[in-house]
Amino acid sequence: MVRTEFPIVQAPMAGANGAELVIAVSEAGGLGSLPCATLSGEQIRAEVARIREKTSKPFNLNFFCHPSPVSDPRKEDAWRKRLEPYYLEFSVDPSSGPSVPMRQPFNEKLCDLVLELKPQVVSFHFGLPAEALVSRLKSAGIEIWAAATTVDEALWLEARGCDVVIAQGFEAGGHRGNFLSQDISTQVGTMALVPQIVDAVKVPVVASGGIGDARGIVAALALGASAVQLGTAYLFCPEAKILPAHLKALQSAKETALTNVFSGRPARGIVNRLMREVGPISELAPDFPTAGLALAALKTKTEASGDFMSLWSGQAARLAKPMPAGELTRTLAEETSALLGRLSVLRDAWNR
Amino acid sequence: MVRTEFPIVQAPMAGANGAELVIAVSEAGGLGSLPCATLSGEQIRAEVARIREKTSKPFNLNFFCHPSPVSDPRKEDAWRKRLEPYYLEFSVDPSSGPSVPMRQPFNEKLCDLVLELKPQVVSFHFGLPAEALVSRLKSAGIEIWAAATTVDEALWLEARGCDVVIAQGFEAGGHRGNFLSQDISTQVGTMALVPQIVDAVKVPVVASGGIGDARGIVAALALGASAVQLGTAYLFCPEAKILPAHLKALQSAKETALTNVFSGRPARGIVNRLMREVGPISELAPDFPTAGLALAALKTKTEASGDFMSLWSGQAARLAKPMPAGELTRTLAEETSALLGRLSVLRDAWNR
Repeated sequence: MVRTEFPIVQAPMAGANGAELVIAVSEAGGLGSLPCATLSGEQIRAEVARIREKTSKPFNLNFFCHPSPVSDPRKEDAWRKRLEPYYLEFSVDPSSGPSVPMRQPFNEKLCDLVLELKPQVVSFHFGLPAEALVSRLKSAGIEIWAAATTVDEALWLEARGCDVVIAQGFEAGGHRGNFLSQDISTQVGTMALVPQIVDAVKVPVVASGGIGDARGIVAALALGASAVQLGTAYLFCPEAKILPAHLKALQSAKETALTNVFSGRPARGIVNRLMREVGPISELAPDFPTAGLALAALKTKTEASGDFMSLWSGQAARLAKPMPAGELTRTLAEETSALLGRLSVLRDAWNR
Repeated sequence: MVRTEFPIVQAPMAGANGAELVIAVSEAGGLGSLPCATLSGEQIRAEVARIREKTSKPFNLNFFCHPSPVSDPRKEDAWRKRLEPYYLEFSVDPSSGPSVPMRQPFNEKLCDLVLELKPQVVSFHFGLPAEALVSRLKSAGIEIWAAATTVDEALWLEARGCDVVIAQGFEAGGHRGNFLSQDISTQVGTMALVPQIVDAVKVPVVASGGIGDARGIVAALALGASAVQLGTAYLFCPEAKILPAHLKALQSAKETALTNVFSGRPARGIVNRLMREVGPISELAPDFPTAGLALAALKTKTEASGDFMSLWSGQAARLAKPMPAGELTRTLAEETSALLGRLSVLRDAWNR
């Protein structure tokens, strides 16, 4: 497993972080992650150049590997029909949005690019890409990480050469990484998931989901994790690129739920009007990631309220302390070290 | 907070544990809990007599405090109609089951009984009983514990005199304790819930949900919990009273989900045929606890398969080690102490 000063990973957050956050976290001794799922090859190249200009420390490039959606005009029409009242309410021309999804899965071309850029770590969401691509990355000495939401997924990933498994608990913000089952009713919380995956696989496990401060980090280490991954905590940093309505919602520590209305796949976000009225889970939402196309223009028009855009957040937003990402990484590391020290007191209390 | 040798609480499991489990856990230095929700006053008196005969250590009496269901014949008819194919398939006469729910909420009469029996702790699920009853218990020096599934519920309980809040994470088996909101899409995992409740209230917090072994116990302590509550781990003990099909399902570590089909309220159980085909959540299920009446005869008839009965389980059944409950309690305590000691190694690794 890649060696960083602290086993703290900044979760890749597509649309919410670019090079700045990666640079700050990696420079501070954590592992910064660049989400590449919504970037073009040229954009990835440019972001990596910016990272390399500012740090020589390890970083992670993150990709999605979802199956490409099959066009289903009937389903897409039904979805737009469901959204029609909102198009009318906000005088939105739904056809003014994009017609092709921004998110693209990892492919041969991106693999060529990654082999050229040679990051220390490449992480995947929604399973793994084709075996040949995994092999090429591994042959180049790049570490492969991927998210598992169940023990079965962890075993599947390990069997296919994954070097590090990210145990993504139910609490985590953004897209669930589930790929063997689409049934979200059986998704597992971090407290139960991490030790069961640690017991099942031989590779190191990174805990994610609901970890907001040093308490969660120590808890994850106690559960057997080799490192922790935090996303929401970093959304409060000035280096994060989120809209004001998203930050405001995060600060209010409102409730979150899993929803598929923004993309077609379940993801955790702060409950807003679209989730309440159309979801949080809707059978009408077309396959990932096409569901988002019909919302693009509506999102832009209602950006100030945040009522129709994804407000991704994990369940521990309340624990966040807004500060620059480098400072946050170092603070988490220091507080973790201090809490690990204080646990000897806990031990005395235990043996009273 | 009541002082036991180890801050380990055996979760009350209505229908699955009686005096034996309480005696074994309390004698071993934990806090045993007697679930009273499905017992008559006379049964409670008898069980407590059996406990007192075998141990002088503290124990907990647990009650439900749900609103009494309003009879809704139309809803009940629709529910029986939904179940009709199963009545036919298994030649079950649905009217052969009970017509009055077994579960009764805490009331004046039970309060009189508790004041007479004077356990050290009384814990509540689904909120708290009427203020006057809480006052009477508190005046008698009985500690009041209650489950919270959100920060709001924890604050509500503390404001009403609750002495200890049980933070019930999403992973927990059996009934969710939620009472301020019926929306289960926003229920929170243990990793995120415990520190947020610890920060919000001044009273001690007991962590529950997904804790299966010493790793989970140390994790909960790191999150700020004063004690831990384990249920599923104790279902594997010979002192637990569960049907063979239930134990078999627990041993197979199958997936769990929240379902309302067995009682009318969401509870976590191992996914079985009824949950798959009718639920896991059904809008047809009548109010708690009446949904169970229509299932009683079907459950009895299909007891061998477990296809139509609640197979309550948390998400960490895979971590369980079958052994007598006293031995389990002591083993958990020893392993927790050992792991707390080993965390100094973790600290060295952290400060590498």
